[in-house]
Amino acid sequence: MHHLHREKLFSLLDDEESAIVYMKGAELMYRNDTDYEFPFRQESNFWYLTGVNEPDFHLVLDLKNQDYHLFAPKRDAQYAVWHGRVKTKDHLQDEYQPDHLHYESKLPQVLKDIDPDKIYCLNQEQSEFIEQFERELPIDLETLEDALTHCRVFKTGWELDQMREAARVNNIAHTAVLEALEPGKYEHEMKAVFDYHQIKNGLMQDAYNGIFAAGENSAILHYVENNREIKDGDLFLIDAGFECNGYSSDFTRTYPANGAFTDSQAEIYEAVLEAQKQVIEASEPDVKMEDLHILAARVMMQGLKDANIVKGSIDDIMEEDIFALFFPHGLGHFLGLDTHDVGGYPKGVERIDRPGIKFLRTRRTLQPGMVLTIEPGLYFVPALLEPALEDDTASKFLNASKLKEMMDLGGVRIEDNIIVTDDGYENMTDVPKERADIEQVMAG
Amino acid sequence: MHHLHREKLFSLLDDEESAIVYMKGAELMYRNDTDYEFPFRQESNFWYLTGVNEPDFHLVLDLKNQDYHLFAPKRDAQYAVWHGRVKTKDHLQDEYQPDHLHYESKLPQVLKDIDPDKIYCLNQEQSEFIEQFERELPIDLETLEDALTHCRVFKTGWELDQMREAARVNNIAHTAVLEALEPGKYEHEMKAVFDYHQIKNGLMQDAYNGIFAAGENSAILHYVENNREIKDGDLFLIDAGFECNGYSSDFTRTYPANGAFTDSQAEIYEAVLEAQKQVIEASEPDVKMEDLHILAARVMMQGLKDANIVKGSIDDIMEEDIFALFFPHGLGHFLGLDTHDVGGYPKGVERIDRPGIKFLRTRRTLQPGMVLTIEPGLYFVPALLEPALEDDTASKFLNASKLKEMMDLGGVRIEDNIIVTDDGYENMTDVPKERADIEQVMAG
Repeated sequence: MHHLHREKLFSLLDDEESAIVYMKGAELMYRNDTDYEFPFRQESNFWYLTGVNEPDFHLVLDLKNQDYHLFAPKRDAQYAVWHGRVKTKDHLQDEYQPDHLHYESKLPQVLKDIDPDKIYCLNQEQSEFIEQFERELPIDLETLEDALTHCRVFKTGWELDQMREAARVNNIAHTAVLEALEPGKYEHEMKAVFDYHQIKNGLMQDAYNGIFAAGENSAILHYVENNREIKDGDLFLIDAGFECNGYSSDFTRTYPANGAFTDSQAEIYEAVLEAQKQVIEASEPDVKMEDLHILAARVMMQGLKDANIVKGSIDDIMEEDIFALFFPHGLGHFLGLDTHDVGGYPKGVERIDRPGIKFLRTRRTLQPGMVLTIEPGLYFVPALLEPALEDDTASKFLNASKLKEMMDLGGVRIEDNIIVTDDGYENMTDVPKERADIEQVMAG
Repeated sequence: MHHLHREKLFSLLDDEESAIVYMKGAELMYRNDTDYEFPFRQESNFWYLTGVNEPDFHLVLDLKNQDYHLFAPKRDAQYAVWHGRVKTKDHLQDEYQPDHLHYESKLPQVLKDIDPDKIYCLNQEQSEFIEQFERELPIDLETLEDALTHCRVFKTGWELDQMREAARVNNIAHTAVLEALEPGKYEHEMKAVFDYHQIKNGLMQDAYNGIFAAGENSAILHYVENNREIKDGDLFLIDAGFECNGYSSDFTRTYPANGAFTDSQAEIYEAVLEAQKQVIEASEPDVKMEDLHILAARVMMQGLKDANIVKGSIDDIMEEDIFALFFPHGLGHFLGLDTHDVGGYPKGVERIDRPGIKFLRTRRTLQPGMVLTIEPGLYFVPALLEPALEDDTASKFLNASKLKEMMDLGGVRIEDNIIVTDDGYENMTDVPKERADIEQVMAG
């Protein structure tokens, strides 16, 4: 289905000028000057245009003729011994269906034959590579990235199907973790269960380094140690997902390790859940992501106020950035071939330099075909809250005694993945999130 | 226990001269210009000397005073929110026990205070970093690597204990795969079982990209797709291991997918097993690794001759490199903080440029404290055997009709991990490898 992606890109680039797109696929990556090889993962833009998931390929798009040239590395018998059958040209042609298939040594000749006036590249490194052969030509390093980003923000039907499949398996894996969770186990045992279900279902590549965090670790946004014992009374936060054909899934759930929320945990949990549900309900075309972020923050601050943790008017709490002490990250981000997918900030739109919103990864207006995460959260982070209790302005909004009681609660985050549709949204996440449902599964 | 490693290194470097060792720990690695972060793994030499498994540290060893300076990055409250509690200096001092703990900004001042005449570095990149502060000093880029390699080849008792623990868990995971194996499952389901047991037991980092290969895939030495259905009649080859505290385990087994070897599979399997057992029995101090490689090859060629696949005298088969058509890799390699560990070729010892032995990863003479893999194998690789059948010399040694029948058999490899002891070896691998034992477990 990658020909649709090339057609989309062709439609955005001028076919009047004699220009080409040149891109280099990813090479194998090794760790620290050793021969430890990371599992190969194609660079996302190259994958988007070609569907080639093998190292050392190149592509040239001839914009005038809308011709797709794919360049394959030449492999020998030793390659076959170590890495597997060498695909013939016929095999590669069949699999990838370029207009013209070449071995990479032909690249200079093909460039000479096309004889373009201009080359579009993604970055300096690739432009330096192509300049070996075409020293005199102007190279444009901006247009291609903008055009590809535009293409990738709006998913095709085939892309949405890959994301639904990643989500389907993620629903299975998250539910399995919920069923396996109990005090006395270690965080990494939950990761073992999670990875097992992903890999068993054929998803081999994690979408990101998953978070399996018990107790106070649940307040660390990118916790990756995953090696602590899960204790009775802990909250347990799991934020994890794998890719299907390159497309990510990214869910978060927060559970009571022993199967029942305490009153304090329930207060925080309900504040986050209410925010998440309101934001998802409000998701539809023409809504601004930053407005949803603020909506989530307000709902959660009302929850903290009802729980007597913050005080004062919600307007003042928002105005003075108090919400950022408890909700220090963005509401969500685009999702696709990268977990933090491209396109969050189109040209000319800058991040807002305020504590409560500067980590928001997108300021787009929602449109059909966009896929994004909705993941509000509330956290008790001593590194943020202890200085705030000493701060003249902030401390006025904080109930110090209640806050100190909550300091080791950790955090709650609830994250679903949604597709924006013509008249609203499609929620791909189907893992228990109502308190009663969670407690019922854990009792069973 | 890392202080023992520093003492070992100090003992190899001249303490008369006013010199320092400078090393930079690993930084986080990201994929293809995205924010996909690989799980952090310290560079092996830095890990060996410090035990620090966090990014962005530096070390200076003052050779004259045998002083160990450790430099930590300075983290702020934002780091605490995203990555976890910021360790205090007291905490770092306690955990890593350097003679002097500094923040990294103090590096220029400490260099000025020590005022060395010479700096030992591991590589160009690190020497360029340190030259920012010390432009005039001679930098030695050879001695340190040689000394560290010498240290790492001979394991301490603590290091051997880490390797035994990695092996203990690997025994569990390999045995679980044997128990789960059956036709109709996919290769990746075996990986799911394998990873599950490693991670459940607290080992989070694979030692290398594991191989789970059914049928003809078992003849691909570095097969990593792991996505084919396992069929009745297939051989199934698993080559996989995880690290414990940085120390690798690396086992291989080959099983009949349906629980019973065919006659042809049994002939090949017994040839490899006999070679592996003879080589392990012969492993003791003062034996040369290349002699063991030749021993394995001879035993396996006798097996192929008994099976009527090759013909002629074993001496001639060896002389004409015919064995390399079936056994195209080395007998084994050192194992430690890297899976293909350092020290295989000491200074002045070159690889032997002959097909049957040029991939042998070590030509050392065995000595107590070395840890290595013993992994003979026989493979039917069309890319090697089909040209050999057309070759005037090689074809004289091959029984073409029998060989063609075997061409889709795949391969057999059997790999154990051994410690060389004062009077022989300790085998850390305890996964069924006798045919009868394998068939019994699979029947159970």
